[in-house]
Amino acid sequence: MPDYQAPLRDMRFVMEELLDYPAHYARLPGGEDATPDVVSAILEEGARFAREVLMPLNQSGDQEGCRLEGGEVKAPKGFKEAYRQYVEGGWPSLAADPDQGGQGLPHSLSQILSEMLASSNLAWGMYPGLSHGASAALHHHGTEDQKATYLTKLVEGTWTGTMCLTEPHCGTDLGLLKTRAVPTDGDAYEISGTKIFISAGEHDLAENIVHLVLAKLPDAPEGSKGISLFVVPKYLPDAEGHPGERNGVTCGSLEHKMGIHGNATCVMNFDGARGFLVGAPHKGLACMFTMMNAARIGTGIQGLGLAETSFQNALAYARDRLQMRSLSGPKAADKPADPIIVHPDVRRMLLTQKAFAEGGRMLVYYAAQMIDVVEHGQDVAERDRAEALLGLLTPIVKAFLTEVGFEATNEGVQVFGGHGFIREWGMEQLVRDARITRLYEGTTGIQALDLLGRKVLMNQGETLKMFTKEIHKFCQAEEATPGMAEFVRPLAKLNAEWGELTTGVGMKAMTDREEVGAASVDYLMYAGYVTLAYLFARAVKQARSALEAGTEEAPFYRAKIDTARFYFDRLLPRTRAHAQMIQAGAESLMAISADDFGLGFEI
Amino acid sequence: MPDYQAPLRDMRFVMEELLDYPAHYARLPGGEDATPDVVSAILEEGARFAREVLMPLNQSGDQEGCRLEGGEVKAPKGFKEAYRQYVEGGWPSLAADPDQGGQGLPHSLSQILSEMLASSNLAWGMYPGLSHGASAALHHHGTEDQKATYLTKLVEGTWTGTMCLTEPHCGTDLGLLKTRAVPTDGDAYEISGTKIFISAGEHDLAENIVHLVLAKLPDAPEGSKGISLFVVPKYLPDAEGHPGERNGVTCGSLEHKMGIHGNATCVMNFDGARGFLVGAPHKGLACMFTMMNAARIGTGIQGLGLAETSFQNALAYARDRLQMRSLSGPKAADKPADPIIVHPDVRRMLLTQKAFAEGGRMLVYYAAQMIDVVEHGQDVAERDRAEALLGLLTPIVKAFLTEVGFEATNEGVQVFGGHGFIREWGMEQLVRDARITRLYEGTTGIQALDLLGRKVLMNQGETLKMFTKEIHKFCQAEEATPGMAEFVRPLAKLNAEWGELTTGVGMKAMTDREEVGAASVDYLMYAGYVTLAYLFARAVKQARSALEAGTEEAPFYRAKIDTARFYFDRLLPRTRAHAQMIQAGAESLMAISADDFGLGFEI
Repeated sequence: MPDYQAPLRDMRFVMEELLDYPAHYARLPGGEDATPDVVSAILEEGARFAREVLMPLNQSGDQEGCRLEGGEVKAPKGFKEAYRQYVEGGWPSLAADPDQGGQGLPHSLSQILSEMLASSNLAWGMYPGLSHGASAALHHHGTEDQKATYLTKLVEGTWTGTMCLTEPHCGTDLGLLKTRAVPTDGDAYEISGTKIFISAGEHDLAENIVHLVLAKLPDAPEGSKGISLFVVPKYLPDAEGHPGERNGVTCGSLEHKMGIHGNATCVMNFDGARGFLVGAPHKGLACMFTMMNAARIGTGIQGLGLAETSFQNALAYARDRLQMRSLSGPKAADKPADPIIVHPDVRRMLLTQKAFAEGGRMLVYYAAQMIDVVEHGQDVAERDRAEALLGLLTPIVKAFLTEVGFEATNEGVQVFGGHGFIREWGMEQLVRDARITRLYEGTTGIQALDLLGRKVLMNQGETLKMFTKEIHKFCQAEEATPGMAEFVRPLAKLNAEWGELTTGVGMKAMTDREEVGAASVDYLMYAGYVTLAYLFARAVKQARSALEAGTEEAPFYRAKIDTARFYFDRLLPRTRAHAQMIQAGAESLMAISADDFGLGFEI
Repeated sequence: MPDYQAPLRDMRFVMEELLDYPAHYARLPGGEDATPDVVSAILEEGARFAREVLMPLNQSGDQEGCRLEGGEVKAPKGFKEAYRQYVEGGWPSLAADPDQGGQGLPHSLSQILSEMLASSNLAWGMYPGLSHGASAALHHHGTEDQKATYLTKLVEGTWTGTMCLTEPHCGTDLGLLKTRAVPTDGDAYEISGTKIFISAGEHDLAENIVHLVLAKLPDAPEGSKGISLFVVPKYLPDAEGHPGERNGVTCGSLEHKMGIHGNATCVMNFDGARGFLVGAPHKGLACMFTMMNAARIGTGIQGLGLAETSFQNALAYARDRLQMRSLSGPKAADKPADPIIVHPDVRRMLLTQKAFAEGGRMLVYYAAQMIDVVEHGQDVAERDRAEALLGLLTPIVKAFLTEVGFEATNEGVQVFGGHGFIREWGMEQLVRDARITRLYEGTTGIQALDLLGRKVLMNQGETLKMFTKEIHKFCQAEEATPGMAEFVRPLAKLNAEWGELTTGVGMKAMTDREEVGAASVDYLMYAGYVTLAYLFARAVKQARSALEAGTEEAPFYRAKIDTARFYFDRLLPRTRAHAQMIQAGAESLMAISADDFGLGFEI
């Protein structure tokens, strides 16, 4: 069975050494409670929970799946008990507002913990995970009454949340949605319609479920400007706020999926369910983006988390499995063959996993720091800057980390050879679980349009310039630092090229809007590789400083530099392909008519 | 449920127009029977069988899987009946030697049919598919008696074959194998040991199963030079050649796998099973390569076949699914949204699938033509050349087509968005089924070592030069042809670079053998992209000729040119990354010690 140890040393490196979280926390309101000791204790307890409670349920949860019986969904064995422990441990309230019963610790801490949940049991982690989006929507857009009624329960963890967006005929294009909300008595509405792909839509882990539902009011304008957001509880709270009358929302069926079997993906039927408007009428899309942005970062973290677990287990196997001799002569002459970690191509696969896990971690923690500032920062300029940068990075975190996370889990299977395909080893589950992350909360294609169309071109590249300027400054400051040139030079070149590529697409898009879509995914991947290169270069700087200052952990820092060097040598060259494809333009994509696509087989 | 139509028009394009199979067949002994009419009838009947018999069993076979009951394996419902029809249709004997009851048609025809089997039902296709390797081994290395006893039955299809190579502790490294063969009475041996991952090792489709088993004789030298090959039937043939006494080989258990659920992957226990030596003692590895090479081409075909099916179904969905408006203005103004095929990024995914399916088809049929020549060619020089080129292309066919085939099936899921993750749609099954093709019959890493180490460097690049010279000649002949420059110029450049990269790695490998392994997978992928570019350029030439000559199928030929242009614009640039990574060398792979790999989490 696969194992997972939270990479606490690497987490500390990124938090403390690379991004100076201690100073960052000290400046945040509420952050003063997040002293290094407190943080350390939280991470260690989270690591224990992930390894001892969640990881042992990961494979059994996959094999058992969820069951729908008489309208009730049973999660796999052990899931409910694990959730009870999670709530008792106070985990759901960690970063929540003290006004709603939260502990008020920085949001970034909660993100870092969610890496552990994703690594150890993605399907389980989605039960509490979906609550984050619902909580964010209520926190930012709910009335005081709604906060008191629903948000406090979500914070406590006794109730969980969902996001009910997708319908059978519309996922990306929410303007098409058909679910209706009709005003009834007081401030209530009757919600009717069918939602699909509702993760954690029905289950037995919590005493109530709070659905955040997009629907249209009778007087709604056409399209996406006519969408409103409603809170629809499974059980209507009684006068004491306890779950009371059963509401008209039920799970119609469970989807049979490729992976995340332990999470219930529900078809939810709303039959005149009682719901309450969140935010202004017809302004639901803005509220939804509050949920979505949290969910998108969370999904990127899933890509990172699965890459880490796959790496750890592939590494153990590669050290253990004896097969063939090293081409440069036996390395374990006393054994019948060498462990496969001696082979360069096995190392290439392991290092690819390692670089994506460690690079992804830097990116997520870097973005998480911005979330803290956006949520709690005191300086307006600093907050605006963090908000813009976070907006730019969100689609990269979501799509790049899930694309490379999927690749990393596949490398894990590949290291195991034929055994990787066998369920028992657990490596193929990571691939199946990772596959969803490229799809939900907006596919890679949608993220790429968000990045290039909305976040970059829509404001004439201003936000991008803010970021590339930061990279530029780093390169200038470090170009003469001994040992940094091999990293800083290629980074500076790519950073400049990034701007040129952006201008190039922007110019073409002025005459042909299809150019944006044509370039978008390659552009996103390019952006991801450069962003990770920047963070790896910064990591090298830190590691070099530590080595120069003298340290008992020299092997750790040297391995960090080696990983960065591998990244620059063997992964960053992919930008050469993406750059060329960004420039290839839309023509060869748009030439064939939809009819002529199938002429090879439609006869 | 997914559908599949054999791409007969494209198949005919590759066979008749691109590779001039009619002239090729006319020159082959036995090929005179393969007239265009006969070939056409065979392909159409194969297409019908694939679509009407096999495809409807693909999803149900995946859901049902195989069952082991009292030592007997039951294949999913309908598999046995389909196999009966397959045998009755005379399919197994198509390309077999008339001396053993075969129809003596060219081998390439059998390869082309196996594309249809892989497309419509990979798990089912592996039952007859494994017989090919066993047949090849017996055909080339068996005694006349063994041929009469076993091969005729395999040709008839009433018995099926297996390849028993892998053991729990050794897959790639067969020198470590422990299965023993002890001489007993007459020409018989007692075989004892455990083999794993035996596809179609036990099932209820055929009346007997012929295992080709690698084992060691008591006096065997150490390592891979001490391996012998044995034929071990499930039932020992009686005096009339019918299945008689049950032999001591049984299925101990079935593996639970990520995919190909309809095929029984068996642990096979040999308990003093009666076996007979095939070929010379200790020379089993050479015999095994006869099986392996057939199986490797067959696996590449699986990659191609799955890419095609995924493409066809993604195309249908993309034409049907309405979501968002085209960025350049509505294309289906009468509908609530545009079909997603209007979006450039959806087209990029579909064209990626299309280009890999059509490009893969050209590569497979090109290699299949060489198989014909190797097996039946009359001219020694021509045969030697075909054998060398086929040897060079085999690892490319196997690894490149399974890597890009896996990518193509993933693009198919991506086109479906969240629905791609749901079993019902069938797209995720194609990914799960495709995943094994990168692993079995030698992983991508093993193929890459075979290509770069054995096929290219071991003979100082002579075989490669033979191939690049052919490409060079084509480029020279066509560079001035109107409309060809956009394809010929980049191809000529890459072709020259291929030689330079090879020399570069060869030089480095002289001082450090690890350089071969370090460059190998990127080298193989590079080789695959250039080879497909060559074939696409040739396809453009044919398509242009047809258009110039005047044709009623102008849209087909134009689509072919458009697909080639997409390939050159949007896939071939990947060579830029691979070229750089080939040159990156081994250093950054070998720097970290096996101990230091895990310092981020091992604390």
